[in-house]
This record gives sequence, structure tokens and C-alpha cells, in this order.
Amino acid sequence: MDFDRPGDVFLADCPARLALDIVADKWSLVALYGLSKGPRRHGELAGLIGGISLKVLTDTLRRLERHGVVRRREYAQVPRRVDYELTELGRTLLGPIEALKDWAEANGYAVAAHLDRAAS
Amino acid sequence: MDFDRPGDVFLADCPARLALDIVADKWSLVALYGLSKGPRRHGELAGLIGGISLKVLTDTLRRLERHGVVRRREYAQVPRRVDYELTELGRTLLGPIEALKDWAEANGYAVAAHLDRAAS
Repeated sequence: MDFDRPGDVFLADCPARLALDIVADKWSLVALYGLSKGPRRHGELAGLIGGISLKVLTDTLRRLERHGVVRRREYAQVPRRVDYELTELGRTLLGPIEALKDWAEANGYAVAAHLDRAAS
Repeated sequence: MDFDRPGDVFLADCPARLALDIVADKWSLVALYGLSKGPRRHGELAGLIGGISLKVLTDTLRRLERHGVVRRREYAQVPRRVDYELTELGRTLLGPIEALKDWAEANGYAVAAHLDRAAS
């Protein structure tokens, strides 16, 4: 890691820092991961994620749409059907997200133990 | 990615989701990255990161301490010297953070272009 050069993504203002906003949000991460296997409807995704309010999920999906990583698809049928899928740009995020997931799985209990100690 | 099994880290409540809170925060990510090369003092880290208020950096570092990924070291000398370093647990995060950084560098402009279109 060399951050002595100017314009380093994590340490200066640049478009890359904008891109970081996507992943720097817990619900965005879990929503993207929830879409990793294919398109999902809103309620289906909420059930898959668990512990997220429908309103928060809606806001999260809109934000991801604005960032160009999720696409909302509306089908001309009755009853109306809407689902969400990853865009091509969104799919490029699956690698880094998987790395985070592996880390969280391996270290979740260690972090929880630290938080417990800090709280007592 | 198989999230059909119960207890999946990204899609259920478990200690791993707690661990996600660390990385699901832009300033935590950049602060951890800023410490990746070794211990730094508060002001030094603020300068390295850029665009972060001293107050926000202080809060971020305290949060990372509580999660057990950053250690605050105070030296018995005059004037008082304090610095911050990654713990062993914190160092395990560098791999996933590097993956995110690479992604953000490669896709920052694409995301910025989507945001511009969404705003207009």
C-alpha cells in the first residue's frame, strides 16, 4: 500500500471516495450481497436480509440505483411486478464484498468480545 | 456465495454483522487505511486523510478502539505524546480494505457519472 503519491483513493478527495460511499454503509453491503444470486423483489430481499425495515430497504435500493450499481425493473403485467438486480457495475463489487464477508465471518466473535469489554 | 443456509453473515443477525459495522463507515475505512503503514499521531492522520474534521477523526478512532481494531498509545513524556496503531485484529482488515480500495480506484469515475445523471 503506497499512499504517499497524490490523489490516493482512500486519503484524498476524488471520485473514488464517492465510490466508497456505496460500500461504507451496512445496508448497502447486505442489499448488494442479497442480490448477488440474481434479481429479487423488494419483500423477498427484505426477508432474505432480516432485521431491515421496508422503508430503509427502499431508501437503500434508491441510493444504490443512483450510484448505478442496482437496476429497478418494472414489468407490464397485472398485478404490477417490480424487481431489482445488480448492474454490470454492481457485479464488479461482489469480489470486494465477498472479502469483507469472509473477514466478518472469521472475526465477528472477536469484535463482539471487544465491544462487550468496552461497554462494561 | 451461498446464502441459503441459516446464519449467513450478511443476511442475518449474528456477531459478523456487528463486525460489518466497522467497515460500513467511510471514515473508519480511510482511518484504518491511513494506519496501514504504521502508527500515526492524530494530527498526522488527519493531514494524511484530508477533508475530515478533527472531531470526526477523534470519534472514528474511539469507535475503532472499542471494536478492538485500533490501539491508542500514550507515552510518558513531556510534551505528552499519543499515537494510534492497528491491533493484530485490525491488521486482518487490510486485505478486504485493499480490495475495496482497488474497486473504488477502478470504478470511481463510473459511479460519479451515474450520480451526476441521477442529479440532473
